[in-house]
Amino acid sequence: MKTHDETTMSLRLVHSAFSREQALTDLDSFRRELAAAAAHTYTLTERVPLHNLTEWRMDRRDGVIRHRSGKFFTVQGIDVDVAGAAIPHWDQPIINQPEVGILGILMKEFDGVLHCLMQFKAEPGNCNGIQVSPTVQATRSNYTRVHGGSAVPYLDYFLDRSRHRVVLDSRQSEQGSWFLRKLNRNMIIEVSEPVEVVEGFHWLTLAQLNELLFTDDVINMDARSVLSCLPFTDVVLDQHGSAHTMVDLLSWITERRSTVDVTVRQRPLHRLSQWRYNGAEFSHVNSRFFDVIGVRVEARGREVGQWDQPMLAARGTGLVAFLTTRLDGVPHVLVQARVEPGFADFVQLAPTVQCIPDNYRDAPRADWPPFLADVLDADRRTVRYDAVQSEEGGRFHHIRSRHLLVEADAVPEHPDFRWMTPHQLTRLLWHSNYVNIQARSLLACLRAVTSVGPVANPRPAAAAPLGRAA
Amino acid sequence: MKTHDETTMSLRLVHSAFSREQALTDLDSFRRELAAAAAHTYTLTERVPLHNLTEWRMDRRDGVIRHRSGKFFTVQGIDVDVAGAAIPHWDQPIINQPEVGILGILMKEFDGVLHCLMQFKAEPGNCNGIQVSPTVQATRSNYTRVHGGSAVPYLDYFLDRSRHRVVLDSRQSEQGSWFLRKLNRNMIIEVSEPVEVVEGFHWLTLAQLNELLFTDDVINMDARSVLSCLPFTDVVLDQHGSAHTMVDLLSWITERRSTVDVTVRQRPLHRLSQWRYNGAEFSHVNSRFFDVIGVRVEARGREVGQWDQPMLAARGTGLVAFLTTRLDGVPHVLVQARVEPGFADFVQLAPTVQCIPDNYRDAPRADWPPFLADVLDADRRTVRYDAVQSEEGGRFHHIRSRHLLVEADAVPEHPDFRWMTPHQLTRLLWHSNYVNIQARSLLACLRAVTSVGPVANPRPAAAAPLGRAA
Repeated sequence: MKTHDETTMSLRLVHSAFSREQALTDLDSFRRELAAAAAHTYTLTERVPLHNLTEWRMDRRDGVIRHRSGKFFTVQGIDVDVAGAAIPHWDQPIINQPEVGILGILMKEFDGVLHCLMQFKAEPGNCNGIQVSPTVQATRSNYTRVHGGSAVPYLDYFLDRSRHRVVLDSRQSEQGSWFLRKLNRNMIIEVSEPVEVVEGFHWLTLAQLNELLFTDDVINMDARSVLSCLPFTDVVLDQHGSAHTMVDLLSWITERRSTVDVTVRQRPLHRLSQWRYNGAEFSHVNSRFFDVIGVRVEARGREVGQWDQPMLAARGTGLVAFLTTRLDGVPHVLVQARVEPGFADFVQLAPTVQCIPDNYRDAPRADWPPFLADVLDADRRTVRYDAVQSEEGGRFHHIRSRHLLVEADAVPEHPDFRWMTPHQLTRLLWHSNYVNIQARSLLACLRAVTSVGPVANPRPAAAAPLGRAA
Repeated sequence: MKTHDETTMSLRLVHSAFSREQALTDLDSFRRELAAAAAHTYTLTERVPLHNLTEWRMDRRDGVIRHRSGKFFTVQGIDVDVAGAAIPHWDQPIINQPEVGILGILMKEFDGVLHCLMQFKAEPGNCNGIQVSPTVQATRSNYTRVHGGSAVPYLDYFLDRSRHRVVLDSRQSEQGSWFLRKLNRNMIIEVSEPVEVVEGFHWLTLAQLNELLFTDDVINMDARSVLSCLPFTDVVLDQHGSAHTMVDLLSWITERRSTVDVTVRQRPLHRLSQWRYNGAEFSHVNSRFFDVIGVRVEARGREVGQWDQPMLAARGTGLVAFLTTRLDGVPHVLVQARVEPGFADFVQLAPTVQCIPDNYRDAPRADWPPFLADVLDADRRTVRYDAVQSEEGGRFHHIRSRHLLVEADAVPEHPDFRWMTPHQLTRLLWHSNYVNIQARSLLACLRAVTSVGPVANPRPAAAAPLGRAA
């Protein structure tokens, strides 16, 4: 019964992923509406010194930046020890937002094809104003109305699921270097009853979403996260040969988690040894990683017209990349077991490469992270996907990552790396704390390549000069 | 490939679970050897006031009891808030042992039948000296030799797995009311090479272990935990109809974890509001739950001859019980989503009933935990399993729990309870933090009933008078 249902759902998802023509919405007019919406719904975001924020203050006793209501999130300092690591000790600011929010996509079948209800959403940190977000993107503060905004459309489908079908419902982590133990509930709900479409919402097939994933900064991070969780799995596909059995992969993860020796201690922001307040922002002494900035936001077309808040701002564009290969004809990606201080279990599965290349501009290649050179030196004909995607625009100011999928030879494994099938990653997404947001985002892109094909990729996939997107 | 392997392993486990005659060891002589070992290997455990411990001290600044080396574990106080719960606030002592130990069973096939290498092990808290433990039961301190003991036999099979087959390797929680976020690595390794049998170790089939599970206090808690993780799962069995799909069950767990509002704060032991130091032990003001005691231990036949340590001591025998039923012919157990302050995610799957009945001796039935009355009033003909099992003897002094499996009607579900198949529980044991130790222990007993049958149960399964085992 259950297995049958699972296989059926997987086949319906595959059908939607190949349904470009049978869609309810025309993609060209969707793009025009997106452009039009960006013209009249936007946020004006102005950088202001942190100490000029009106709603936020740093408490001098514990060095934590808090909202005056005590709600939303805080920015605090942490001191990290990772015994035996290449960088065994550092300190840094980090966002603490312990509430579990909801990122939800509503699905419904039209003419036999599953569609996703997607939202135009402006976020203050977006480099381009509006991006395409899940149906619902609600922090707990949002839906308990701490900031007095209006009700979140469609939220009830996710809170009361008795009349609907749950396709997936799992808590997933966010950036473990920027968030302390943050989890959001990623949900996909299928409804069969009629759904009224509110302005700014559109029904898209997975094929259309996949096509949009080939354009920079269109599908927002939360949408990529939920899309990555789609259960494209079934018993038949799982029987294909993978390099490692699931038992062996889980044992590898258990080993890493059991033996890593990480200590994270809270430390006041103004006592961090490697960070300085320059009168406006907290920055790393070597001007690397990110800055903690203040912003004043004026929004048009959002629930609340005006507010200010701290954000993290980028120092250079990130790079996330999977090496991909075929082993005995079966597609695999090279997955890294990566330590990030904000993860509940410290270790999660990450892309082959995840870094800010600018940080290594002056470093000898021997000091580069593993496989960074393989990705940056790759022959353009081996690049299957190349687009820049935005990180979440509610907390991050213009933070973007180049996403690359590079076909490679079956390089030998390394204690921290394993070849896994995309299906094995997908299986783990039924559970929390296995696959990090960067790997999930790339998994969504990988599925897009599989259904749309690399031919749709408009970017000349040249070997990227280091730090090209800075 | 993978799925095929999994099915094959499951069939081999079933074969072993029905192999009583083809075993390498005769069970009667095993029982005699166990009795003989208990006569010459034992621990003399004497209760002493906590302040008389020589190696342990309570730090008056933070109210934490520590070993002078800073190693092993600590006993600290916590203050717990669970918003909206029946008991929304309490404080208590709890053991903090952040290291991940290894509980490992070595398996090997003899004459086509899988056997487990089991160890006679004396623990200071055991009510009967020696019990049957996994092949390896090692804290990190054990295997890094903090206490200067001898090397742990067979540990290398679990540390270097390259030549062996990993059957299961997952970190599992321990008692969430007595341990703060404790995880042990539960491992099952199959070897094909010859294994030398050290004195005190014996090869047993699963059928033999199952039979031993019908005798009180023979199979220790760690062994029950590892045995519960045996992957008795395969695709064929999984296709049987369950009341809920795995997606719906995972969504239920996600919902509970996302909405529960638990706060755990550290508080000095001597500042706990509901606990007092009586000059020898920390006890609850109403003499309930447990005591924190000191013990002086003299061991014969163990690595270290003499030591002292704090332990938790019982106030009454616990009760853990599953209601079981058949839904459309398929066996189900009624599982509780239970909050315990020591769990990383606060909520795990627990037995239908998990409590100390003595605590409700004077309470009106309306205040009893759900289903406690159903279990205690059950007709003896519906009791499928009834034995008393010990909690871990390294930290707990004579703490025991009556284990019951009671066949019941398909009672309606309740927001905190769901009917699940044993196979669904087993599936979740591939991952951490889903199934608590009490439910795992009962799952091992349930499998014993399935293979041995209730006829082997020697205890007159009378409806138990409340607190009978106190």
